[in-house]
Amino acid sequence: MARTTSLSGFPEWLPEERIVEQHVLDSLRRTFELHGFSSVETRAVETVEQLLRKGEIDKEVYGVSRLQQDENDSAKEGSLALHFDLTVPFARYVVENNGYLTFPFRRYQIQKVWRGERPQEGRAREFTQADVDVVGDGTLPFRYDVELALVMIDALSALPIPPFVLRVNNRKLAEGFYRGIGLDDAPAVLREIDKLEKIGADAVARNLQDAVGATGEQARAALALAAIRTEDTSFVERVRELGVSNELLEEGLAELAEVVGEASQRAPGKVVADLSIARGLDYYTGTVYETVLVGHEQLGSVCSGGRYESLASTGKKNFPGVGLSIGVTRLVTRILSQSMARASRSVPSAVLVALTDDASWSAAQDVATALRARGIATEVAATAQKFGKQIRHAERRGIPFVWFTTVGEDGSVSHEVKDIRSGEQVPADPTAWQPPAEDLHATVLTQDQDPA
Amino acid sequence: MARTTSLSGFPEWLPEERIVEQHVLDSLRRTFELHGFSSVETRAVETVEQLLRKGEIDKEVYGVSRLQQDENDSAKEGSLALHFDLTVPFARYVVENNGYLTFPFRRYQIQKVWRGERPQEGRAREFTQADVDVVGDGTLPFRYDVELALVMIDALSALPIPPFVLRVNNRKLAEGFYRGIGLDDAPAVLREIDKLEKIGADAVARNLQDAVGATGEQARAALALAAIRTEDTSFVERVRELGVSNELLEEGLAELAEVVGEASQRAPGKVVADLSIARGLDYYTGTVYETVLVGHEQLGSVCSGGRYESLASTGKKNFPGVGLSIGVTRLVTRILSQSMARASRSVPSAVLVALTDDASWSAAQDVATALRARGIATEVAATAQKFGKQIRHAERRGIPFVWFTTVGEDGSVSHEVKDIRSGEQVPADPTAWQPPAEDLHATVLTQDQDPA
Repeated sequence: MARTTSLSGFPEWLPEERIVEQHVLDSLRRTFELHGFSSVETRAVETVEQLLRKGEIDKEVYGVSRLQQDENDSAKEGSLALHFDLTVPFARYVVENNGYLTFPFRRYQIQKVWRGERPQEGRAREFTQADVDVVGDGTLPFRYDVELALVMIDALSALPIPPFVLRVNNRKLAEGFYRGIGLDDAPAVLREIDKLEKIGADAVARNLQDAVGATGEQARAALALAAIRTEDTSFVERVRELGVSNELLEEGLAELAEVVGEASQRAPGKVVADLSIARGLDYYTGTVYETVLVGHEQLGSVCSGGRYESLASTGKKNFPGVGLSIGVTRLVTRILSQSMARASRSVPSAVLVALTDDASWSAAQDVATALRARGIATEVAATAQKFGKQIRHAERRGIPFVWFTTVGEDGSVSHEVKDIRSGEQVPADPTAWQPPAEDLHATVLTQDQDPA
Repeated sequence: MARTTSLSGFPEWLPEERIVEQHVLDSLRRTFELHGFSSVETRAVETVEQLLRKGEIDKEVYGVSRLQQDENDSAKEGSLALHFDLTVPFARYVVENNGYLTFPFRRYQIQKVWRGERPQEGRAREFTQADVDVVGDGTLPFRYDVELALVMIDALSALPIPPFVLRVNNRKLAEGFYRGIGLDDAPAVLREIDKLEKIGADAVARNLQDAVGATGEQARAALALAAIRTEDTSFVERVRELGVSNELLEEGLAELAEVVGEASQRAPGKVVADLSIARGLDYYTGTVYETVLVGHEQLGSVCSGGRYESLASTGKKNFPGVGLSIGVTRLVTRILSQSMARASRSVPSAVLVALTDDASWSAAQDVATALRARGIATEVAATAQKFGKQIRHAERRGIPFVWFTTVGEDGSVSHEVKDIRSGEQVPADPTAWQPPAEDLHATVLTQDQDPA
């Protein structure tokens, strides 16, 4: 893939790469719909006010304004900007349409988002996210925190990617623990714990003492919590051994045990309780999820999310939610750059109908129409070049079959179809012939399936 | 549809409306792929320079810039703006990737575009277009002008919309005719002819004389040409009767006759030669298409396009193209506002698995997994409310079936499924039960099919 795009951070795929991306998108849609999630799309733009409500990411936001702006434009509707995720727009959508939705409302949303970040591997300025969320009106049973993990495990398992691990933690567990040891500024502690992988335990311990005012013992306890990582609910015992007691901690332990217990039974090896996870704990209020591809940990999380006690609210109503978001472009970029999967051909066409002479174009269209009626993607040659040239054209495009129609001197019509890979050519009836199932559509082959 | 969106010109659909839109998008994709077109997506942004190359629509373009822009930003990559169609981005894509594409290159592209126009019925600021084009390297046989008309007739025929007519004209025909009668400024004549429907023939005749300097006879001839409209190739005879002779005119007559002759045979009544069509003739170089829904002519064209002798070019290479673009949002808005079609239910789910008690959630997930394995969209109740409440929840969401699992005192498990529309409840096996085919997916019912 020596090809570079003309605008850094805005990836574009070649047709055969796009087939892989579409396979991923189709697969996600199928899983989400099988789990009863409705599709929603929101507009690409929000008001700047709406986008910046949750915090300080304004540097990353792309503003939008007409090149020849009236003075009225922003006065009328506020300044506009491109959405940087699908959560903020969805929260607005829920508030605006809550009278038309049935709660708990299950939606998936697959759209592009934009962030003006410095482009680098795994980070684009325009990229596709695939979100699922369940939103309640007033309350939302905790069970959805379990269910959403299972939905995403299903969704990721169906993709042509390496094994993955869903890491789960819980804000209540962490915050309750910190309070239990006398550290009340949970966000500050989490900020330091978040640096563990980068700077190591010793440096974090020093920071906790210098920046957060922890004692050496408090720092050690916080680090001991962050060291716990189990594939089952044994983390509960491990936390108890640290001898900290706090009501919120107990609530968090019970919640995380429910997620990990159920998920580890239903999808063994796909989920871990990972008490070092700090990212996201500052804005989620309970469960928090992130996901890494085994062997590709440095790519960062490919599927993250959590529980918001207040995803959205109107004056009167509160809407709690839980959900996760897959970084589709990040996944597809990795799939393509590491040749984890490839399209079986670069075009949808299974058949090219060759032209015997220029006058046969309309008859060739009849053949194509008959084939398409049975779902066989077909194109017709535009000019009656030599058959060898027409076959080479099919070859270059990866079309497996070329169709020949000949009209005898007595006006009788005969058809033959050639598999240009084997060279085998056989008589065929346009109203009945069927290609082998594996040739009907362009498919996506994973490395294991790849005959090459 | 009393519901209004919070940002004028940026339509958003409710889940049941989105199902109709998805049906339209899926149907278009299917048709395009059956005809051998590859999917391509381009980034949402282009450089302003790229977007404004073709003319003076800068008022409609949305510029994009980071809210906290570095001085470097636009210096490095030029000012950015949202694309306002899919043709300009596709032309750039072809130039950038021509070494990786096989020509003639057939692509479809379904994406949102943005225009800062005043919102009104049929005109949004954010809307979806579905384009098909064939692009050649150096040359592109005229046959594709015929084929592309047939592709779009197929695509539109599969949608839940009223009968439509594809109107076709040809730039060479019009320009050749005008030259033949001594009017050399074809664009100026076309600008006046374009006003025919709005201001009438007399006013256009006056304008042709006042603004273009035509004689009364020239004006009458130009209007006589624009009055020709035939469902077959008889327009050729009608033009000849006007007694104008010009080489370019002959070329245009032959081309238009080929499109209309073939299309009227293969799709009777769907195509007309309409010599009044002037819009687009200034930038297309041969065939030009537009499409109206019968009875909804005031909606404007829902599918337009034409032939460009130079869709794109590099220093060395020229890429001619022919293609059409469907205004998906315009169509979907009309389908919904006139109730031409509706979703059979608002959610994908065919089955809600009820909870007997809170402890049965995991067993209910087993049932759901078994159903999903056979492609049956299923959700599980989150709490063990009274059955009546769980059934009402399914009812409100339009889910046709509710599943009940009971565990006997001896540990034996039995399953029943209830069709909540008929009330019929029967024993069922989660590994074998199948809903009626019409209930498997949310489907889209047209007015005729609608039992309501």
